[in-house]
Amino acid sequence: MKALEERIKQDGVVLSGDVLKVDQFLNHQMDPDLMFEMGQEFAHLFQNQGITKILTVESSGIAPAIMTGLQMHIPVVFARKHKSLTLTDNLYSSSVFSFTKQTENQITVSQKYISTDDKVLIIDDFLANGQAVFGLIDIAKQAGIELAGVGIVIEKSFQPGADKIKAQGIQLESLARIKSLTDGKVTFMDEH
Amino acid sequence: MKALEERIKQDGVVLSGDVLKVDQFLNHQMDPDLMFEMGQEFAHLFQNQGITKILTVESSGIAPAIMTGLQMHIPVVFARKHKSLTLTDNLYSSSVFSFTKQTENQITVSQKYISTDDKVLIIDDFLANGQAVFGLIDIAKQAGIELAGVGIVIEKSFQPGADKIKAQGIQLESLARIKSLTDGKVTFMDEH
Repeated sequence: MKALEERIKQDGVVLSGDVLKVDQFLNHQMDPDLMFEMGQEFAHLFQNQGITKILTVESSGIAPAIMTGLQMHIPVVFARKHKSLTLTDNLYSSSVFSFTKQTENQITVSQKYISTDDKVLIIDDFLANGQAVFGLIDIAKQAGIELAGVGIVIEKSFQPGADKIKAQGIQLESLARIKSLTDGKVTFMDEH
Repeated sequence: MKALEERIKQDGVVLSGDVLKVDQFLNHQMDPDLMFEMGQEFAHLFQNQGITKILTVESSGIAPAIMTGLQMHIPVVFARKHKSLTLTDNLYSSSVFSFTKQTENQITVSQKYISTDDKVLIIDDFLANGQAVFGLIDIAKQAGIELAGVGIVIEKSFQPGADKIKAQGIQLESLARIKSLTDGKVTFMDEH
């Protein structure tokens, strides 16, 4: 997605350790018009597949997921990383290790909001090692539902997550695919 | 907002201790079309005020805030409740006590994303004791910015938050105002 790549070039900041900081428009401050365009793009990429529900994880997945749900007119469920007092139902849960934070989180989804009739699209903001996405795929498997695919805003293609998802035969669509962050410079897969 | 009140009546669940569970459409599973309508309503209620930025707090505030930002074409900043590795800037922070969870959280906003030129609208999903909103107001004060007002999806009018905000002369607009949750029944302020 051209507008997204341009925005990453303009406002993304490369930190040491292959960390790309995009909190100017994606995961702290957010640009709603750009998010709306992302939703249009995801809806286009996964059209005509009979998708009934979008699954994401708090917090940064919520905005791109809700914009995609708005285009597709289907509900969006966000997995929680932290316990909720009012979520006392039976839960699907999966363990997600964060390489950046070096912590393990339980992500949970109420069993009420995904059923075996659902066909689910997973949306998230970042794909690096794929831990969060595999947690969501695990929850989809526990629920016995069909997975339509995975939509990612920014894929760090030089890290193993993308290949691992595709190796499972899952449709993966990323709006920006980063080849490298070497020397503080963002290079996309479609650049030469 | 009629559509919201109807949805609360239809899908909200009253738990003991005056807890209203709306995870069917607001804070776990989300209805994007209803969220879009909320954004339209907030944009209408706060129109022509020269608002430049929306401030909310993760996670459940994000969806109504981004939909409002979409209508107003202005950036949305969400305060974080948990530390981020890539948010290492100078931060505004405020202490927020959660009555439901009986825990104290530090909410933080990068100083980069609010400036003294900003006129800010605070959006959140729930208003009960007002702790989260007062944390955001505190951050706005630290940043020395003008506060346009506070927009809330569901106000529990029988708890002290709403009166405390209005006592400070702040414009408060809530899309649904709950008079009571007595005997497991939702009664709105505009019902008799």
